[in-house]
Amino acid sequence: MDSASGSGTGSVKVGLVQMSMGTERSENLDVALSGAREAASGGAEVICLPELFTSRYFCQVQDPAFFDWAEPIPGPTTHEVSQLARELGVTIVTPLFERRAAGLYHNSLVVVGPDGALGGHYRKLHIPDDPHFQEKFYFTPGDLGVLVAQTPAARLGALICWDQWYPEAARLAALRGAELLFYPTAIGWLPEEKQSEGPSQLDAWRTVQRGHAIANGVFVIAVNRVGRESMGPSEIQFWGHSFVCDPFGVVLAEAGEEEAVLVVECQLGRQEEVRRTWPFLRDRRVDAYGGLDARFLESD
Amino acid sequence: MDSASGSGTGSVKVGLVQMSMGTERSENLDVALSGAREAASGGAEVICLPELFTSRYFCQVQDPAFFDWAEPIPGPTTHEVSQLARELGVTIVTPLFERRAAGLYHNSLVVVGPDGALGGHYRKLHIPDDPHFQEKFYFTPGDLGVLVAQTPAARLGALICWDQWYPEAARLAALRGAELLFYPTAIGWLPEEKQSEGPSQLDAWRTVQRGHAIANGVFVIAVNRVGRESMGPSEIQFWGHSFVCDPFGVVLAEAGEEEAVLVVECQLGRQEEVRRTWPFLRDRRVDAYGGLDARFLESD
Repeated sequence: MDSASGSGTGSVKVGLVQMSMGTERSENLDVALSGAREAASGGAEVICLPELFTSRYFCQVQDPAFFDWAEPIPGPTTHEVSQLARELGVTIVTPLFERRAAGLYHNSLVVVGPDGALGGHYRKLHIPDDPHFQEKFYFTPGDLGVLVAQTPAARLGALICWDQWYPEAARLAALRGAELLFYPTAIGWLPEEKQSEGPSQLDAWRTVQRGHAIANGVFVIAVNRVGRESMGPSEIQFWGHSFVCDPFGVVLAEAGEEEAVLVVECQLGRQEEVRRTWPFLRDRRVDAYGGLDARFLESD
Repeated sequence: MDSASGSGTGSVKVGLVQMSMGTERSENLDVALSGAREAASGGAEVICLPELFTSRYFCQVQDPAFFDWAEPIPGPTTHEVSQLARELGVTIVTPLFERRAAGLYHNSLVVVGPDGALGGHYRKLHIPDDPHFQEKFYFTPGDLGVLVAQTPAARLGALICWDQWYPEAARLAALRGAELLFYPTAIGWLPEEKQSEGPSQLDAWRTVQRGHAIANGVFVIAVNRVGRESMGPSEIQFWGHSFVCDPFGVVLAEAGEEEAVLVVECQLGRQEEVRRTWPFLRDRRVDAYGGLDARFLESD
């Protein structure tokens, strides 16, 4: 039964480490790993860290010096995470800034298994770019497709941040058998628009991801950072609100806007139960989806 | 500017006719047309009727006699709606049970323009089937693709009910330039599970459609029926809650569980505004979406 269809039975406890990032890599790593340790002590079997968790969100500005913060895979961060994963016997979804070659960098993650081995590698497919999130300067769009990895606890998909707005990515993860879909994230408010736009932005972010859970019958786990970070003329208040929802979009747990470690039990049988009642995969019109790979379909 | 990109400026008032259906076709037509008249008197320029609005929801049971209720396009219903659309000078999204040939029936809609002409024809792509919604017995899956039609008021997409759970259909409508996306619907609670499942079902239905609005930057207009209908051993309480949300998923208006006519103003410039700030179409990875036309992608 341990196949593309998912293990499908039992439950898995997922751990979410919602943290703020300081200026020192070693301190960020310490906070993340101690959060993972706390989650594991609460029974978490799959733990997810936030996007780019070893550093401040440097994409607020364009500065080639920040490429120094990138590292290879395997590299220093995966080495430390591997040791902890093996010690704790847990799977850790580990985002990092990947240096692939000179001048070629990705916003990536690796799935580190309970044996410490790297069990999956993903490079962010959808790259945002706006005055406060200048990611196209740093990150080459991913070329590894959507990641779905079998782990001892469950079959999991993992995407990163901006991917969370794309139904295509979530669907591909579901079609590859994901039971749990992780979104490590770095998203926040601009202080000058928080009052007017903040509630609708947070609500849209939560809603579109809950929509993916519903449309695909998968658990969704979003893990965001918190805290205010300033860089150059830009300031972002990362909004936290990391959450887990079930395959019908029901929110099982949600953090606030401070640091938090959540441990949430996901009953894997819920996927089968929801999909039997709401059999969306059965009725997909795979013969009628031509055009989804077009940029736009000009009018007749 | 009146092209695939949408007219993009000004506003359009949409009218939603949320109604209960009785056993008499003529009475249902009267209620629908008087609802359309009320919406037009409130300024509505595009009015949407519920799925299969001329009859009770007969798909609760399988009975070949109900095929007698199907009609051609054009036919009696489009004739009456055309007359009213021309009189009022409005566009009417008109669902009906289509008889295409002997033994070949569709769950369809036509877009009737303010000149009374049929400006678009859609056949429901995704056909549900469960003990209370036995649609696969009645309806051949549609073969006209996703409908997007230019009307004087706006460029509109129209899908039907079960389609509303499919991100692919909403995306194709957006790629074809839809500004407004209509979902005439017939969805409800089973009385025996309403207490335990009702709130999460209604919430999932609203959430997945708001998710389409957000992911695609389109207004979504869902128009449901209300009332209890019994047929054979089956009873459904249609839950109403017809709503309009903007291209960021913000709910602009929502009906309750009784009959209602809503008239809601949609500022078309909101689409451009939302998409400039949240440019999801810009960053789609059209090179990485292979597999969306697969039934499932077995694991490696």
